[in-house]
Amino acid sequence: MKVTDRIAVLRGEMEREGIDIWIVPSADYHQSEYVGSYFKARQYMTGFTGSAGTVVFTQDKACLWTDGRYFIQAEKELEGSGITLCKMGEPDCGTIEEFLEEELPEEGVIGFDGRTVGIGEGKGYENAAARKNGSVNWRHDLVGRVWKNRPSLPEEKAFSLEEKYAGESAASKLARVREKMKEHDADVHLLTSLDDIAWLLNIRGNDVAYCPLVLSYLILYSDHGELFADETKFSPEMLADLAENGIALRPYDEIGEAVAALPASSGVLLDTERVSYALYRRLPEHIGIREAENPEILMKCMKNDTEIENIKKAHLKDAAAHTKFMYWLKKNIGKQEITEISASEKLEAFRAEQGGYLEASFEPISAFADHGAIVHYSATEETNAALAEGKLLLTDTGGHYMEGSTDITRTVALGEVSRREKADFTLVARAMLRLMNTVFLHGCSGANLDCIAREVFWAKRVNFNHGTGHGVGHLLNVHEPPVNFRWKEGRTPAPVLEKNMVITDEPGLYIEGSHGIRLENELLVCEDEKNEYGQFMRFEPLTYVPIDLDALLPDEMTEEERGMLNNYHKKVFETVSPYLNEEEIAWLKDYTKPV
Amino acid sequence: MKVTDRIAVLRGEMEREGIDIWIVPSADYHQSEYVGSYFKARQYMTGFTGSAGTVVFTQDKACLWTDGRYFIQAEKELEGSGITLCKMGEPDCGTIEEFLEEELPEEGVIGFDGRTVGIGEGKGYENAAARKNGSVNWRHDLVGRVWKNRPSLPEEKAFSLEEKYAGESAASKLARVREKMKEHDADVHLLTSLDDIAWLLNIRGNDVAYCPLVLSYLILYSDHGELFADETKFSPEMLADLAENGIALRPYDEIGEAVAALPASSGVLLDTERVSYALYRRLPEHIGIREAENPEILMKCMKNDTEIENIKKAHLKDAAAHTKFMYWLKKNIGKQEITEISASEKLEAFRAEQGGYLEASFEPISAFADHGAIVHYSATEETNAALAEGKLLLTDTGGHYMEGSTDITRTVALGEVSRREKADFTLVARAMLRLMNTVFLHGCSGANLDCIAREVFWAKRVNFNHGTGHGVGHLLNVHEPPVNFRWKEGRTPAPVLEKNMVITDEPGLYIEGSHGIRLENELLVCEDEKNEYGQFMRFEPLTYVPIDLDALLPDEMTEEERGMLNNYHKKVFETVSPYLNEEEIAWLKDYTKPV
Repeated sequence: MKVTDRIAVLRGEMEREGIDIWIVPSADYHQSEYVGSYFKARQYMTGFTGSAGTVVFTQDKACLWTDGRYFIQAEKELEGSGITLCKMGEPDCGTIEEFLEEELPEEGVIGFDGRTVGIGEGKGYENAAARKNGSVNWRHDLVGRVWKNRPSLPEEKAFSLEEKYAGESAASKLARVREKMKEHDADVHLLTSLDDIAWLLNIRGNDVAYCPLVLSYLILYSDHGELFADETKFSPEMLADLAENGIALRPYDEIGEAVAALPASSGVLLDTERVSYALYRRLPEHIGIREAENPEILMKCMKNDTEIENIKKAHLKDAAAHTKFMYWLKKNIGKQEITEISASEKLEAFRAEQGGYLEASFEPISAFADHGAIVHYSATEETNAALAEGKLLLTDTGGHYMEGSTDITRTVALGEVSRREKADFTLVARAMLRLMNTVFLHGCSGANLDCIAREVFWAKRVNFNHGTGHGVGHLLNVHEPPVNFRWKEGRTPAPVLEKNMVITDEPGLYIEGSHGIRLENELLVCEDEKNEYGQFMRFEPLTYVPIDLDALLPDEMTEEERGMLNNYHKKVFETVSPYLNEEEIAWLKDYTKPV
Repeated sequence: MKVTDRIAVLRGEMEREGIDIWIVPSADYHQSEYVGSYFKARQYMTGFTGSAGTVVFTQDKACLWTDGRYFIQAEKELEGSGITLCKMGEPDCGTIEEFLEEELPEEGVIGFDGRTVGIGEGKGYENAAARKNGSVNWRHDLVGRVWKNRPSLPEEKAFSLEEKYAGESAASKLARVREKMKEHDADVHLLTSLDDIAWLLNIRGNDVAYCPLVLSYLILYSDHGELFADETKFSPEMLADLAENGIALRPYDEIGEAVAALPASSGVLLDTERVSYALYRRLPEHIGIREAENPEILMKCMKNDTEIENIKKAHLKDAAAHTKFMYWLKKNIGKQEITEISASEKLEAFRAEQGGYLEASFEPISAFADHGAIVHYSATEETNAALAEGKLLLTDTGGHYMEGSTDITRTVALGEVSRREKADFTLVARAMLRLMNTVFLHGCSGANLDCIAREVFWAKRVNFNHGTGHGVGHLLNVHEPPVNFRWKEGRTPAPVLEKNMVITDEPGLYIEGSHGIRLENELLVCEDEKNEYGQFMRFEPLTYVPIDLDALLPDEMTEEERGMLNNYHKKVFETVSPYLNEEEIAWLKDYTKPV
């Protein structure tokens, strides 16, 4: 069935249900960053394959909103579909809200699958409908009716994360979360975010690309719990473990009924930023809602000592693999054909040689020359560039190992690059090193410290249009909120940086049509001296991979910054050399020499 | 009447009114930073003269809470009063809330003068009473009954701030505020903060020490207004001006009745951080309250071009006066007797020589040697130290001129000071200069930028326990919220730094028992380059007074920091030398030479 036919069938369903406007976002039922093929309803209805976008249908109009990353791709993919592309951020682009205001008839109905929409978003649609004395219909999955041969929900096996990796039993975590429930006067905790569930129960799976998670919901009561997930995913041992913790299995799609059946006298702890509009609406009318951030969120971003020990092991493997890759790249460039994709595969192969490697921790970026300036670039067969000397290669990649997850970006000079590229590289290196080496008082958040990295950029009147860093999950999501380095606060302010949090430090500079540079280390938040002024804190790098000296202009660094680099490179050599062969050691020695 | 007698009379009044616990805070009816003698009820009831503290009475107990600045002074002043000193912040010091919990009998009554208590505070007392099924009584001024010979309310004259100083007519400001009222769906705006009223109506007065303000309240309606103030303060011309803007005078003490008489159908815009609990409680029961920060607050901190021009003139006068003072001090130290107080008076005299000088803009700090380490030190006849060579003098002073207000801190070496003092001075100078010279993207607040100053402190594991800067009013309060440099956000986050805001940059280092150093420049927020990355911003110093080279170790500064200092000193010389005599010019030349 062509996209136009799909839309025609959808419009028939809209008419049958009395729905004037139907909205299809990109989300799954868990507000996940990556969604499985079952959930790609927006892609199915439009043909547009980008990761972000919302399509809105009336009986005679269809409009897709997406952001600047995807304008060119969307334009191409929407061709012939009759769908209008709305370029978010462009001056003449109206908002979805304005579209609803204009198109919704008096007493009209706005419809959407309430499971794919957040509470705030759903309330926004309610308000839009109310302004026309209309209503919302959130109970149907109209695309599901259109979509023949829809991929099935993932049937991948789950596995237990043993305590030697997790460092804390599920029983202990459950007890801690139940303490928080008590603090919020809640006897029920509705948990829908997959990483929070995985962390809490020490389970992992393979249901979401790049994230070792299990598709599930959890309702936690004071003395037992119900995990809504496909039972066939679990081994008898896992089921027994869960049962021992008072957690019973129920089918994934029974969550709605279960929520609707909660006693109205309950106090339900739930995170309105994460629970779907549908589940929110299904709650009994007079139930006590305790709105709060999931307590698991802050708990899981403060890693325990076992996790830290394991994370360091994972990074050691990653550093060895990445250093080998850099050596291989420097040695072979110009001698054999290497493309963006083959380079990325080679790096992945080096990772796979390390024990305990599971999979890439996110969609790898391997961007040559001007591709590096496209922040979310992902090489496809069509764009796949052949690497050549004289330009930079930016790789932003990472791996999940049984011990933990990694995220690292390096930009490497292939042969001799221009002075401009070196100057830009040096600026990025300075920013990264300055933030990594800063000392701060306990109480600071990433919003306070972001400027430590940006200061050197802003002095040159340049900037990078992304956060300087994000939290990293332990064998969960590699982008783990709420920890971050961002000078502009989001909806919830960044939390105080606490001991044992893990955060990336990744400034970048992007010159459209020419080159892109980003350098990313992961940092561990550590305690430093405590004195009369308070508890000082510092960062310890987790990533130990050289900063390419071929791309550096040491004269453009301050003496202090050169010291930071030399100190880091000394540790890189000490840390990584035991895992390299003789040739690689000699190379590393040279590439970590003091400047 | 002795304090013990006053307390006895108060307890009689408490009994008569059926009040179990009576609370006396330090505030006036406007939450002012400085309060006039009429409002010093807490001082009258305790004998304690410090600026901050709350006293709580029962029939057999009396406890005064104050902070670390005042422990020694309070202990002394409370002697013989029978009042217990509660040292806030000390581990064994309970809170007022705990005291109420312990002392309030079942169904008991907590009393206080509701005009001297903020809304949040009053609600806190309500909750404390409710826990005992009791109530609050906020309608009486029991201290007023005890206090014979109470000073009268100030009867100082008000004056108009002409448009050549204010840069915008009251009519224009009123129109802008009424736009904001509309946005908040309000037809009434209750304004109780003296600086907001003074700014809005372009009036000034002399009712509050160090602040040229008029004791008043304002109720603004859509088409007229009522100013509650003593009519005798105003000249016929001023009354005519006010009348032209639709503002009628009513007696100061009629505000309560006026608030109580507002139509219940009104929408009242009010700032719950600023309106008193009494006025809040007097609002008709079902009136529509529109809670929002006073719109005047953000308006008045973005100075207009006329104000900026005038502020620069005021700073020029201040710079000349302060430079003359530094020269005089360096020349005369060791040759004539100079004390903290006489130095401060000398500085004030240099200011008074400048045209248009009105008064000091806050209580001056003149702190020699170890006194400099006491952040809120104020020399008294007893503590007044004689200055001597070999130590530092810290002065934190400012003036109101007709053109604007200033706030400047300099620390000056008297003779040769120790290497330790120089090292500390150099650190403070580096922090001040780095922040002053930072460039940032529009959108940053002081919470983002505070670490630019603190970074060099934290690298040495030291800190200063106050904000790095505060907004400065234009012939209003010298401490003008909400603009600030603070890494820890207060109850309301710091606003985005906008063009034409004025903010201080004043890091310090305090070594108890030895010395204290603070350097403070006022900065003007300016637009810098606008390019594809956005609107860059920078600061322009308003203060042009040398940083004492006698106390500086240039070797401990980076080359970049030395450049910042030399650049600043070059401008100091260019700016100030035209206002000095030959001798002073020669001295300034030497004290602004490149390092």
